[in-house]
Amino acid sequence: MNLQAIYHKPKSNFCYAYNENVIHIRLRAEKGDIKKVFLVYGDKYNWNEKQELVMKLTCSDDLYDYFTIEVTPKSKRLAYYFKIEGDNETFYFTEWGLINDINEKEVYLHFFQYPYLNKEDIHIVPEWVKDTVFYQIFPERFFNGDTSNDPDKLTKWGELPTSDSFYGGDLKGIINKLDYLEELGINGIYLTPIFEAPTNHKYDTKDYFKVDSHFGDLEILKELVSKCHERGIKVILDAVFNHCGYFFEPFQDVIKRGEKSPYYDWFHIHKWPIETNPPSYDTFAFTYYMPKLNTANPEVRDYLLKVARYWIDEADIDGWRLDVSDEVSHAFWREFRRVVKEAKEDAYIIGELWLDAYPWLKGDQFDAVMNYPLMRALLQYFAYENISNNQFKELINKIIMRNTMQVNEVMFNLIESHDTSRFLTECNKNVKKLMMAATFLFTYIGTPCIYYGTEIGMEGGYDPDCRRPMEWDKRAWNLELFNYYKKLIKIRKQNKVLRRGSFEWINDLEEIIGFIRKYEEEKVFVLINNYNFDKKVTLKIDGKYIDVLTGEIF
Amino acid sequence: MNLQAIYHKPKSNFCYAYNENVIHIRLRAEKGDIKKVFLVYGDKYNWNEKQELVMKLTCSDDLYDYFTIEVTPKSKRLAYYFKIEGDNETFYFTEWGLINDINEKEVYLHFFQYPYLNKEDIHIVPEWVKDTVFYQIFPERFFNGDTSNDPDKLTKWGELPTSDSFYGGDLKGIINKLDYLEELGINGIYLTPIFEAPTNHKYDTKDYFKVDSHFGDLEILKELVSKCHERGIKVILDAVFNHCGYFFEPFQDVIKRGEKSPYYDWFHIHKWPIETNPPSYDTFAFTYYMPKLNTANPEVRDYLLKVARYWIDEADIDGWRLDVSDEVSHAFWREFRRVVKEAKEDAYIIGELWLDAYPWLKGDQFDAVMNYPLMRALLQYFAYENISNNQFKELINKIIMRNTMQVNEVMFNLIESHDTSRFLTECNKNVKKLMMAATFLFTYIGTPCIYYGTEIGMEGGYDPDCRRPMEWDKRAWNLELFNYYKKLIKIRKQNKVLRRGSFEWINDLEEIIGFIRKYEEEKVFVLINNYNFDKKVTLKIDGKYIDVLTGEIF
Repeated sequence: MNLQAIYHKPKSNFCYAYNENVIHIRLRAEKGDIKKVFLVYGDKYNWNEKQELVMKLTCSDDLYDYFTIEVTPKSKRLAYYFKIEGDNETFYFTEWGLINDINEKEVYLHFFQYPYLNKEDIHIVPEWVKDTVFYQIFPERFFNGDTSNDPDKLTKWGELPTSDSFYGGDLKGIINKLDYLEELGINGIYLTPIFEAPTNHKYDTKDYFKVDSHFGDLEILKELVSKCHERGIKVILDAVFNHCGYFFEPFQDVIKRGEKSPYYDWFHIHKWPIETNPPSYDTFAFTYYMPKLNTANPEVRDYLLKVARYWIDEADIDGWRLDVSDEVSHAFWREFRRVVKEAKEDAYIIGELWLDAYPWLKGDQFDAVMNYPLMRALLQYFAYENISNNQFKELINKIIMRNTMQVNEVMFNLIESHDTSRFLTECNKNVKKLMMAATFLFTYIGTPCIYYGTEIGMEGGYDPDCRRPMEWDKRAWNLELFNYYKKLIKIRKQNKVLRRGSFEWINDLEEIIGFIRKYEEEKVFVLINNYNFDKKVTLKIDGKYIDVLTGEIF
Repeated sequence: MNLQAIYHKPKSNFCYAYNENVIHIRLRAEKGDIKKVFLVYGDKYNWNEKQELVMKLTCSDDLYDYFTIEVTPKSKRLAYYFKIEGDNETFYFTEWGLINDINEKEVYLHFFQYPYLNKEDIHIVPEWVKDTVFYQIFPERFFNGDTSNDPDKLTKWGELPTSDSFYGGDLKGIINKLDYLEELGINGIYLTPIFEAPTNHKYDTKDYFKVDSHFGDLEILKELVSKCHERGIKVILDAVFNHCGYFFEPFQDVIKRGEKSPYYDWFHIHKWPIETNPPSYDTFAFTYYMPKLNTANPEVRDYLLKVARYWIDEADIDGWRLDVSDEVSHAFWREFRRVVKEAKEDAYIIGELWLDAYPWLKGDQFDAVMNYPLMRALLQYFAYENISNNQFKELINKIIMRNTMQVNEVMFNLIESHDTSRFLTECNKNVKKLMMAATFLFTYIGTPCIYYGTEIGMEGGYDPDCRRPMEWDKRAWNLELFNYYKKLIKIRKQNKVLRRGSFEWINDLEEIIGFIRKYEEEKVFVLINNYNFDKKVTLKIDGKYIDVLTGEIF
């Protein structure tokens, strides 16, 4: 047995409270190495009534098998160890490691524990997110609904963007296109920043309390949100709290007054007078016009928390997406969560995070992150075709095991965004590939998000090319794709099993992949033939089934 | 190479901020499996200036080698991967696993990261703790300084205790014995609970805002603390926040009024009228007279936080030891830390925790825990002699690697407490064994604590026997032990290297163990012959050395 491969940690993604009663336990071991694992568990103050359960081999990645189980400790206290059977040997696995014999009297000093399931420590995620299909809008590029607030120099709608282009898109434009969005079927909108800022992307905030005048004003934002709410559409805004813009008043005050400015400690100033090339202050990504905010300063924290609360209270938004969230302190995000959830209990908090985001997803900070790791797997498999069916499954399993199940269930899943090239471009305009990736996205665990225009076949390389103005000329749309997206959204909305169901790979499908989602009495089988396998694959299933794409009944 | 054995996680005990500039990185691999590990690191926005450093094999446990390094990222942003060399193969280890070739363009989606070293996330520990030797007092059993406040029925001082014995020890008694404590040399006192409660141990609080009348009152506590402070002695109290006592007024109100009581939700009531056998409410360890407090209720949190703050503000105490800390919510402890550190920036927060306590020691909750895992290792090695020299070293290494170095440096290290048998009893009265264990405790990383009476050779089995009244008759003392303890304390106080130095095992010492502590120009070598190895062991050292026990100069 590969003893070094065996891993478990309480109070981590390997042992966490799923809800008020249930604790999820995972154990990792070398792939194929272990025949059987038992969880032996009980209350440390009443160990005599211990119980023993067989754990299930739930999934595997390239190196490991993952065994899982859920337990419901009667007294909310859980002490436990694992009994691990290999081919010719049995080990007991406790906090102190692997041993040949267990001393049950050492429960206090020896066993793994989830000492008490306290309600406040449970990561409760917003339930509505599971029922939502998001649509990401880059407001400057969606639709120009009010030409009176246009910037001076407009690039013609339809031309390719540069970093500095302005097209005149605004909030009124989104309001005008709500019929379109409702027809598409989405019921959540995520807007990239809309607050006063000089650039087209507005990630360089000048005024956190003001809607950018080229986009509209508070009243129009309110109108947008309330009209969305009337249609059952939730609205998420973008919180850019890692850094502000160069023209943010407190930063301008520091430029002018240096240490005499009351805002001097709002930033990380290395030298004054301020220099911009290279910046004499901490910035986002060495970008001089994005000075990093100093969240170690309580005044800065208070200010940003006020912003977070203001837009919920004023405009009734339903959550925040957090820009560059990994570079802001955990301490700040904990306060942020408290304030936001106080303002709106079921607000959705999504971090921008490209990494294994578990340190931010333990329940005290975010509800989910933009699932870039999933995007990467979908690109490798569907677009680049540089991983096998099995490797894809292993990657997905690895991503699932990184986080708790409640987080996976509300993960913000995407295949492209304003920060990546378009998926269709990455797969050389092969629409079938995009349709397969979308099929996966809409039938997998978590909440899908469509980046504006994906659904009609918009292309584009990396920023600024991925931020082209929305194509409104239907003659230029890929209607097959558009109708397929509409269908996927409809199927997801009609089948709770796709929004709430468990996830399990189907084995022995030869050269295609497939998985089952189960919820109560319902099951959905999803089959994807990514590598043009041209033989017949037989799937044995009992009962009556409907092909949700064609409506055919079996 | 055992690929499955290789482990690393950012934002964990494997990668954490040690201070405002330095990040500690650890990598785990199978023991003996790896020849060399390089850390390749840089700023993700400026990867061209990446650097490469060789990591050091710092220590090993039974299964693993641990490689460590510290880095100082110039821009406070750290992206990194490992280059791992085995006998005939080289792997690159990123967040996605082990690969044969690295694509340096995938830094965003591929590398490990500590995205930004934010000041607020650094675990800052109280510096004074490193210079402190604690003395734990169970007030009812230390000294009766005021017979006018004695309980009605007193057991004679010197007789063996039962669970219900009272001896009359009190705060005045501690004040009276400060000369003794100063002579011994300690400069920190940890008192088990002193607030109004019916039992002798007072873990069943009746009134959190009142000193128990058998122990004294607020004025006497203030006098104790201020007299301690005059002598440079810090004072820590015991916060019993997991549960209250049966006679806590809010609980009594619930007993009387049930759901009509405004305190009904302060507890976890399953059934009313209240039953005690078995309890119809959550308790500590099924003990009816210790009802668990419901910290999910904000009123309870506010109440307990007020208590935490009150005794710092009123009596100027220097920190809190937290009873049954593992069963209280993390959410509560985070608020607790905020409130306590606001009241006194360098207050010391110690959890009672018998487990791997890392989930509580990340910087947002406690500064340290009672180091029961270390106690267990010392018992196994010195008292029971059931592990070898090597196994002991491996155990200690395992314990070190569980936590960050700043936590290890202020860990509350002990060999016995009011919740264990006496060490001397566990080693069958073999005083030499106790002296060896104490030698380890006083020369190891972390803050030693003496449980009252250890220093004079008090014995006792598990509770209540470990809570015998302090022996004040010098004729009954083991003077050799007492003088040795005084010497150990003095040596620790005189040698900063023992309080601040690094820790490293000395290899090739045949059948004894030894380690070096280093700090600036100073070095201490500690050699312990636990298994009566009777051959001469040669240690080659340069320069002049003093035998700190005998004063002899080499």
